[in-house]
Amino acid sequence: MKPWQVLSDALLLDCPPWLRVIRERVRLPNGHELADYYRVEMPDWVQIFALADDGTVPMIRHYKRGPDVLSLELPAGYIEPGEAPEVAARREMLEETGLVADDWRALGRYFIDGNRGCGNTHIFLARGVRQAGAPQLEASEIMTQHRLTLAEVRTAWLSGQLQNVGTLGAVGLALAFLENEP
Amino acid sequence: MKPWQVLSDALLLDCPPWLRVIRERVRLPNGHELADYYRVEMPDWVQIFALADDGTVPMIRHYKRGPDVLSLELPAGYIEPGEAPEVAARREMLEETGLVADDWRALGRYFIDGNRGCGNTHIFLARGVRQAGAPQLEASEIMTQHRLTLAEVRTAWLSGQLQNVGTLGAVGLALAFLENEP
Repeated sequence: MKPWQVLSDALLLDCPPWLRVIRERVRLPNGHELADYYRVEMPDWVQIFALADDGTVPMIRHYKRGPDVLSLELPAGYIEPGEAPEVAARREMLEETGLVADDWRALGRYFIDGNRGCGNTHIFLARGVRQAGAPQLEASEIMTQHRLTLAEVRTAWLSGQLQNVGTLGAVGLALAFLENEP
Repeated sequence: MKPWQVLSDALLLDCPPWLRVIRERVRLPNGHELADYYRVEMPDWVQIFALADDGTVPMIRHYKRGPDVLSLELPAGYIEPGEAPEVAARREMLEETGLVADDWRALGRYFIDGNRGCGNTHIFLARGVRQAGAPQLEASEIMTQHRLTLAEVRTAWLSGQLQNVGTLGAVGLALAFLENEP
């Protein structure tokens, strides 16, 4: 199955470092042409499912302006330019929760929107977690931390309480990994 | 936890029916102001995890232009204006696979990006599935259908082969539902 041929493109919007919108004129492998195909570039970001030795998982509740809802999510954040995903994951977990971990496992990279793109999320499972300090939040980060047991996380996952599709994907995957390889 | 106050906004880009980008000037509950906060509006879409009586799950492999990869996904598609999500799910499954189902269960609505928005995906589990005809694809839809056993779906899920975070979230959730309530 061949990719599409880009006949021309135009940068419609450039809002660094958050967002770029590109319009492409494309030809599909069957000859069909689309005059206006939109791609959206956004920075990659990380999510961390951290399992503490007491069996709890730190989660964050905050107002998310995109969908305009209060959302229960994993510690997460954008990867800085040139930063390796695991380095970003360690940094974000420390900043948002004050936690560090010895045992890190990458659970994959997943793109956000198939038609537009919208960057990728990199999912990590962290074990051997311990408190190293207090959270260091920026003025724009208003959030409360919650420690959920694995059973509580599973209930939230299965009952539709994890409204962010990135959280949904990461939590399901991490719970399955912990079940298979405890 | 209070939502943010929008002090002003501007429509930066309007590409109906696919995409709108809005820039907001916002004040957070702690008084902190952000001059340039970007939101992205996209149409909602549906995904269908359909379990056939022979224990297989129809999945779709296609080139996705957003991330520029070949992706294994569930039958999926945009909801038409005014269309109920379940109606869209029945329509998309019929169009992409020629399948119909008697037993539909909604597994929730999930937003795509917490900071920008980017619409929502509505996840459905369909059982009592039967072939009603051939797929009816548009010229822009180039895809191959694959029937995977539940074990194969599970392996793809856990091994990072489901690269679309929407697929990742929907498959994990549907597998857990089938395990809990077979």
